[in-house]
Amino acid sequence: MAKFLTNREENYSQWYNDLVIKADLAENSAVRGCMVIKPYGYAIWERIQAELDKKFKATGHVNAYFPLFIPKSFFSREASHVEGFAKECAVVTHYRLKNDHTGKGVIVDPEARLEEELIVRPTSETIIWNTYKNWIQSYRDLPILVNQWANVVRWEMRTRLFLRTAEFLWQEGHTAHATREEAVEEAEKMLNVYADFATNYMCIPVIKGRKSVNERFAGAEETLAIEALMQDGKALQAGTSHFLGQNFAKAFDVQFTNQEGKLDYVWATSWGVSTRLMGALIMAHSDNNGLVLPPRLAPIQVVIVPIYKGNDQLEKISELALKLKSDLENSGMTVKYDDRDTHKPGFKFADYELKGVPVRIAIGPRDIEQGTVEVARRDTLTKETIKTENVIAHIKNLLEDIHNNILQKATTFRKENTYYTDNWDEFRDIIENKGGFVMAHWDGSPETEELIKDETKATIRVIPFDSPDEEGKCIRTGRPSERRVLFARAY
Amino acid sequence: MAKFLTNREENYSQWYNDLVIKADLAENSAVRGCMVIKPYGYAIWERIQAELDKKFKATGHVNAYFPLFIPKSFFSREASHVEGFAKECAVVTHYRLKNDHTGKGVIVDPEARLEEELIVRPTSETIIWNTYKNWIQSYRDLPILVNQWANVVRWEMRTRLFLRTAEFLWQEGHTAHATREEAVEEAEKMLNVYADFATNYMCIPVIKGRKSVNERFAGAEETLAIEALMQDGKALQAGTSHFLGQNFAKAFDVQFTNQEGKLDYVWATSWGVSTRLMGALIMAHSDNNGLVLPPRLAPIQVVIVPIYKGNDQLEKISELALKLKSDLENSGMTVKYDDRDTHKPGFKFADYELKGVPVRIAIGPRDIEQGTVEVARRDTLTKETIKTENVIAHIKNLLEDIHNNILQKATTFRKENTYYTDNWDEFRDIIENKGGFVMAHWDGSPETEELIKDETKATIRVIPFDSPDEEGKCIRTGRPSERRVLFARAY
Repeated sequence: MAKFLTNREENYSQWYNDLVIKADLAENSAVRGCMVIKPYGYAIWERIQAELDKKFKATGHVNAYFPLFIPKSFFSREASHVEGFAKECAVVTHYRLKNDHTGKGVIVDPEARLEEELIVRPTSETIIWNTYKNWIQSYRDLPILVNQWANVVRWEMRTRLFLRTAEFLWQEGHTAHATREEAVEEAEKMLNVYADFATNYMCIPVIKGRKSVNERFAGAEETLAIEALMQDGKALQAGTSHFLGQNFAKAFDVQFTNQEGKLDYVWATSWGVSTRLMGALIMAHSDNNGLVLPPRLAPIQVVIVPIYKGNDQLEKISELALKLKSDLENSGMTVKYDDRDTHKPGFKFADYELKGVPVRIAIGPRDIEQGTVEVARRDTLTKETIKTENVIAHIKNLLEDIHNNILQKATTFRKENTYYTDNWDEFRDIIENKGGFVMAHWDGSPETEELIKDETKATIRVIPFDSPDEEGKCIRTGRPSERRVLFARAY
Repeated sequence: MAKFLTNREENYSQWYNDLVIKADLAENSAVRGCMVIKPYGYAIWERIQAELDKKFKATGHVNAYFPLFIPKSFFSREASHVEGFAKECAVVTHYRLKNDHTGKGVIVDPEARLEEELIVRPTSETIIWNTYKNWIQSYRDLPILVNQWANVVRWEMRTRLFLRTAEFLWQEGHTAHATREEAVEEAEKMLNVYADFATNYMCIPVIKGRKSVNERFAGAEETLAIEALMQDGKALQAGTSHFLGQNFAKAFDVQFTNQEGKLDYVWATSWGVSTRLMGALIMAHSDNNGLVLPPRLAPIQVVIVPIYKGNDQLEKISELALKLKSDLENSGMTVKYDDRDTHKPGFKFADYELKGVPVRIAIGPRDIEQGTVEVARRDTLTKETIKTENVIAHIKNLLEDIHNNILQKATTFRKENTYYTDNWDEFRDIIENKGGFVMAHWDGSPETEELIKDETKATIRVIPFDSPDEEGKCIRTGRPSERRVLFARAY
């Protein structure tokens, strides 16, 4: 099977690229840095969306939609936001094309220049807070708990499918609160929603914590993040939740009358995850045979493949297969019966392995005789023969087992690749030669973080919430430190 | 109640604008022509999306995602498409901003000019067929049945919330087929999906038919459409499905090896509905008290309002209300219990009428004593007292009744406002003074259609599929005609 893909151990990066293409997840488009998300990849994204959307609604949020375009001047309103976002972005300057005088094509009509250029949203804080200004007068209008599913554009120079693309899909929550405490609580709540989703749907254990000042979102007072470890030992930021203080309320003059009748600025959060999660999902679990999908996000959880010669055999097998399909579906599973006669079973087996379908059932003529089916699981690539009458209950349990096993494997991997060190040479050696998470002391200064980054390409991923108080000396400067922080090279 | 809204009979257009704003559906944004879809409006759009998406999947389609940007040159490839679409559109010319030398804001970096301008998609045929070129080699790769949910931009000069906006949300299906017959069948199938959705979810009866050449989609060989009649007598095109022939396959050189081993161009369809449907939904049923929502698309189907003095009463009422809510939800209905103490029952009644919630239950202390509740329906504004033990079954039936009544009312309205005439003066009089659908003979020439449009502002909405063969004379020129076509002024 390895023939499909570059070997993961030889060239992880090429293995990833191969996998995204070969498993029909996404491809590059004719537009630099913009991807096409293919139907199978999009079906996984739809599963991610559906589950997250349920969680957002269960925590009281509603969806809305704000404009794709943002007037250029909006970016200048919040000082640090403009530094962070109004740089590499797509700028709309004209609103009309006209026929070329040669008659052969179209050209931009120089007469149709916009008075003020529009920016294709890289994130929507500015346009949303400009809107909230009209929605909020009194504390009775608060909180506003709104989420948006949308496309955004950041003009990245070096792009990789799902991980870093000029256009990507995401959700961005934007909430408005009457008090600092409530906004802080909201930012933490949504980080927990993300962490819960990563663990219990994506089977990816994550470290929750806050970002250092250097890595903070432009315009935030505090950025919380979940960090995941990929199989090559690099970290991937899988979701962020920002406490924005009153920065955007001040920038867009959003004040409200509080319960004491006094005017005050509104408190804000924003939080988001993107199609980057697809990259995390692929990189965290997959192997040289292809994708390994956690059952709770797999668009197809069970595939049934008939093994037959001639129509008589197929007919008998199909009867059983369709019965099983229907029974499995009635038990809440998503099932595909692949009876295409254009492809051999061997091809189908390899293809569903490549696509990460958690469970494969094969049924041949001998199975029919013996009242059994063959059940193969994608995560371990093992097979068992199961009595037909037990198959529904067996597979229901099996999907749970697979979920637990994938999560367990990722958790063990992370544990084995998390290091504690107080020695700078060892730190450099781990970062350079082993990869993984390194918990080390840091003196708290942005300059030291920058220095470590320059020397090792490792950054502080988060200051973990659960990092205990522990006096120590900064791994680089020897200055005092109060607790360990999480270092790694990152995507 | 009428105080909220301009009277529908006095100024339909202002009534619509008021309603969209007051019912919290949408509002204009800071960006010319781009709307903000507010949470309540977006919740209705989510219901529309969910039901349509189910129907698309049930007919074998899958979702995918293609880039927001299209290289300018792509538009020139299909001759009539460029005429229709590459005109009023948003053009991205630069990819970077930089700090203004005054330090006060940001300006477009003149060094960051794109080699080729990018167009924000007004529709995606070109980028998608450029992609399909790599997906299709053989008849085995066909059909491709893909749909995309996306935002698109058409730089409209005169915009109205939902009905005509620069940016709007839509779905666009793009399918590829081995034969003309299959593509024609697909275009018809999807028109039927739209018609079924309009009738059975939106409660809007529609006329199915094909468009005249003048009204055809740019690049299509045939455009099929469903046309609905609004309460002011104007038509609204509620969905289109295009048979594109081999036009885009030829423009993007998409050939395949057919079953006979010969190369041929691929056959195409595209089909779409947009947030314009929201406009249709609002205009078709609503009244001077506000929105009237068909139960199958209402985000809240039943609202329960307590009428009480003091906490003792509220407690007893809440106990019953929460029990009813839970029972109704278990029967598949969406229910809100509004026990806010910041607003009086009268305010709540008016507000839920404004928002079109189909059923309102009010519970007061006397209801508790007598084992009853008051049930009000939005469509007729009537109330009944119902025994508590019968309430679940009653409301389940009531929602069906309301659905049928709204559909029936719209159907009757259309019938009463559909005219058959063979007299040009009468035709003009109907169009000018009554409004509605006019079934009249037409000689089949684009010039005559243009003439009629210039003289009356009425266009041929569709040549209805079910218009019987009937020899006659063109209403305008007197030349021979084979059947009547549907004229109206339109949104």
